Amino acid sequence: MDIGFVGLGRMGLAMASNLGRAGHRILAWNRSPVAGDAVVNGTIAASPEEVLGADVVFTMLSDDAAIREVVLDGDLLSHAREGLVHVVTATISVDFAGELADIHAARGIGYVSAPVFGRPDVAEAAQLNIMAAGPAEAIARVTPLFDVIGRRVFVMGEDPRTANASKVAGNMMIAMAMEAMAEAAAITEAHGVERGAFLDLMTQTLFGCRVYENYGGKIVAGDYEPGFRLALGLKDLRLASEAGEAFGKALPMLGAVRGQMQAAADAGRGEQDWSAIAAHLLGS
Amino acid sequence: MDIGFVGLGRMGLAMASNLGRAGHRILAWNRSPVAGDAVVNGTIAASPEEVLGADVVFTMLSDDAAIREVVLDGDLLSHAREGLVHVVTATISVDFAGELADIHAARGIGYVSAPVFGRPDVAEAAQLNIMAAGPAEAIARVTPLFDVIGRRVFVMGEDPRTANASKVAGNMMIAMAMEAMAEAAAITEAHGVERGAFLDLMTQTLFGCRVYENYGGKIVAGDYEPGFRLALGLKDLRLASEAGEAFGKALPMLGAVRGQMQAAADAGRGEQDWSAIAAHLLGS
Amino acid sequence: MDIGFVGLGRMGLAMASNLGRAGHRILAWNRSPVAGDAVVNGTIAASPEEVLGADVVFTMLSDDAAIREVVLDGDLLSHAREGLVHVVTATISVDFAGELADIHAARGIGYVSAPVFGRPDVAEAAQLNIMAAGPAEAIARVTPLFDVIGRRVFVMGEDPRTANASKVAGNMMIAMAMEAMAEAAAITEAHGVERGAFLDLMTQTLFGCRVYENYGGKIVAGDYEPGFRLALGLKDLRLASEAGEAFGKALPMLGAVRGQMQAAADAGRGEQDWSAIAAHLLGS
Amino acid sequence: MDIGFVGLGRMGLAMASNLGRAGHRILAWNRSPVAGDAVVNGTIAASPEEVLGADVVFTMLSDDAAIREVVLDGDLLSHAREGLVHVVTATISVDFAGELADIHAARGIGYVSAPVFGRPDVAEAAQLNIMAAGPAEAIARVTPLFDVIGRRVFVMGEDPRTANASKVAGNMMIAMAMEAMAEAAAITEAHGVERGAFLDLMTQTLFGCRVYENYGGKIVAGDYEPGFRLALGLKDLRLASEAGEAFGKALPMLGAVRGQMQAAADAGRGEQDWSAIAAHLLGS
Repeated sequence: MDIGFVGLGRMGLAMASNLGRAGHRILAWNRSPVAGDAVVNGTIAASPEEVLGADVVFTMLSDDAAIREVVLDGDLLSHAREGLVHVVTATISVDFAGELADIHAARGIGYVSAPVFGRPDVAEAAQLNIMAAGPAEAIARVTPLFDVIGRRVFVMGEDPRTANASKVAGNMMIAMAMEAMAEAAAITEAHGVERGAFLDLMTQTLFGCRVYENYGGKIVAGDYEPGFRLALGLKDLRLASEAGEAFGKALPMLGAVRGQMQAAADAGRGEQDWSAIAAHLLGS
Repeated sequence: MDIGFVGLGRMGLAMASNLGRAGHRILAWNRSPVAGDAVVNGTIAASPEEVLGADVVFTMLSDDAAIREVVLDGDLLSHAREGLVHVVTATISVDFAGELADIHAARGIGYVSAPVFGRPDVAEAAQLNIMAAGPAEAIARVTPLFDVIGRRVFVMGEDPRTANASKVAGNMMIAMAMEAMAEAAAITEAHGVERGAFLDLMTQTLFGCRVYENYGGKIVAGDYEPGFRLALGLKDLRLASEAGEAFGKALPMLGAVRGQMQAAADAGRGEQDWSAIAAHLLGS
Repeated sequence: MDIGFVGLGRMGLAMASNLGRAGHRILAWNRSPVAGDAVVNGTIAASPEEVLGADVVFTMLSDDAAIREVVLDGDLLSHAREGLVHVVTATISVDFAGELADIHAARGIGYVSAPVFGRPDVAEAAQLNIMAAGPAEAIARVTPLFDVIGRRVFVMGEDPRTANASKVAGNMMIAMAMEAMAEAAAITEAHGVERGAFLDLMTQTLFGCRVYENYGGKIVAGDYEPGFRLALGLKDLRLASEAGEAFGKALPMLGAVRGQMQAAADAGRGEQDWSAIAAHLLGS
Repeated sequence: MDIGFVGLGRMGLAMASNLGRAGHRILAWNRSPVAGDAVVNGTIAASPEEVLGADVVFTMLSDDAAIREVVLDGDLLSHAREGLVHVVTATISVDFAGELADIHAARGIGYVSAPVFGRPDVAEAAQLNIMAAGPAEAIARVTPLFDVIGRRVFVMGEDPRTANASKVAGNMMIAMAMEAMAEAAAITEAHGVERGAFLDLMTQTLFGCRVYENYGGKIVAGDYEPGFRLALGLKDLRLASEAGEAFGKALPMLGAVRGQMQAAADAGRGEQDWSAIAAHLLGS
């Protein structure tokens, strides 16, 4: 299949190359220049417009603003081949996903929201967890491609917003798990329990899962190399908060964790891994 | 060994009977009357004083006040056999654990704090996780007994407070995990994602561990039969908050989750399972 | 001047009658029937459409939904006399104010947002504080009418949303002042200070202003007759929270006070005065 | 009367000199050296022990630790003249006030907690508001002195802790008022309302009292010269939080404002005026 790919950060590059390795022809474009052979079985396009000639286009840009600028301001969709399906894998706002869905529908272009769970090394290993949502026929078209880049696909619904809401809610749960470990370590350290001993106890009893093991390990080691930058984590908590307004009641733990993430950013930790929210509280 | 056991609620009964099954002679006492054969290989004492004649005494009462009334107000320790080790498995406050340690030390009685993770069915299956702390020789005396009633013992330190701090911090993390699921479900449901679909996604990807699986299942099913009463969970969050004052900085997520648990109690859910904190937010 | 008035609750009735008393001819309409002579110098219209024939129309309905139903769903604006200025005095959302402004501009009708501070007795005494925003010429047309019903007019800007944002932020500050008194009373009562003695100290030293004096008095007296219903106060905190998303950072005290107001509503206090947020915390 | 005075910071110096001006003989001591004529009608003692020979001793040190070091570690009270009344005007913890009361009672020395509201310029003008608590006879002895240094005395009770609880609760209310203004300004600025216009509206309508006028003025001017250092304000919120544990329920707005004050301190604002909590949120 001819696949267009917009956005070649470390995540995008890994996804595009995995698609190339599976035999698809990739035509890719990135805002800043990249090497001509950066993508396996791929070519770098001179302009984003060229990319729209593919059967399926993936977009992995950083946020709403980047997609608005590249896709909408440049009226990129006017270059779409008939039958195109556009897959947006970035973590964008729920409202913007709805706006994109409307714009695509008005032009007869398939639109799928497909945000992912997984850091770059997970993307490289083709082990992403993918939340996909959009019209059934569009989903059906791109599911074989999801199988190439991911470990598993969860179809959330026909409304693309369901996938984006799930993604921001999931990231919120990760942030809460990290802050939970930090607050628990604060309590126990204040009474003489070593951080590593306490977090080992927790992961070996009640919390024996990836999020606690991975981020707990970083917190114990004091290793805050990203990973996923805290500034981006803060953006995702803002998206969760905006999405949560639709619920109509306050979400107090979201308010608390967002406040702590903001405080960590204000104290200069925005470029560290987002698990540095723990370092902000614990002071190391 | 002769083992005294004070407090025969469902947790205490299970622990005492498991000790009896292992061949120990149990002399037990409970504030309200129980059947003479309630404890396997055990006898029911006429008064708590009798129980103090054992080699090791376990106390599993509900809170600080109950232990203060039974043990301290009645000056129970004046009846202790020489060499006694007293094991308090209840979830008590960190400060009270320190007070008990001092009182026992002044009388030459061994004191061990040994709170546990596990509901009554886990206690019955002898699969408790036990956090133990106290002087090394006292710990050594009772470790074989912990092996009988538990799945694993974590020795937290020589200061008994380390075990109690770990217990309240751990319970706090469970409460935060439940509220995290509730707030995430609130966001996603508001955008059309079914609660079960979202929580399945989470436990099958990032949060594949007991706390999320068990309580997530209760939240999806709307099954809030206790289990562990919300009123007790609220007490434990108060203990965590008190213990956290020693840290010297605010713990914002603890404040948030305690507020939600309090609101659920105020709205009449104190006798439900503590996972009903989710029902409070989600309205079902 | 011919003045139309939609919405004859206790606030609306007081404002309309004050305008009538000043010599204006009032043509009023209410969703539920009212007595023909309810408004001084006024007539009750058979339909809301009739009212639109006036020079200026005031709308004092309860919320976004009520205005959407009466004004937009019924396409009421198609009946507007040329040169009409429409003044919306209700506490509506900032976003809806923007939408109303656009709709009126598209039809060449003047639009003014003019939410007020003041309870019904203040409205009856023509002592409201009015925050007004809209195009300068429209504001100029209705300022003489504001002088009739209010104590003072604050013109916030040409964008109607400025007035609505100010109103919800102001109501948020009142709610925070009430919860501040409640939390302070909780701390001092726990150490033996009588509620009245503490709040007197505060209003006689640092907080000698209306909000603290009035609501402090209600809290001490335990008098939670509305006044302003807690359910409406909770709605206004939701509006503040939605408006606050535009700021892009969490507002933690807003999250906290909204959570408490929600908890009070969940515990059955929605029909009490909103100062019952204090009773929720203090338990009386 | 012979008056001893320990602690000659700007507050202490003002209070001591006002007592001297009223004709009392002051014997003062400070941890760091001060000029011999620093206190009107006063002498600087060579050691704190000398000071205890007075009829009444005032202590105005910064916190629990300073008083513990100077008064308790040095066993200063063993030098007390018979009939001495010791007045502690510092903002100390409620628990420490109770401890001091017990220690003084055991030695037959009168003890009065008398924290004050007012910045140094208010102390210099002898316009402090004083919250006093202690045994009636001790209070009676020192009330004439309070009349010299203050505008008004509020006797809170016979238990000294009542005064300290009132002080920390009052300071908490000030911090909440500042954060309330900051969050409200955040909402309104995000919709185009100038900060000064909004805060003027508030102080001219609902919030026409000192705390809002003074701190609102500082927030509008962006003037964060102390004043009262943010680091001390943060300490007082910690004291409020500790005192609040006696209430037994979470105080969510206290948690929120303490978190914001902590974040402002972490971001480097500890030496600014505590109204810089607003600058932390608003970013200027």
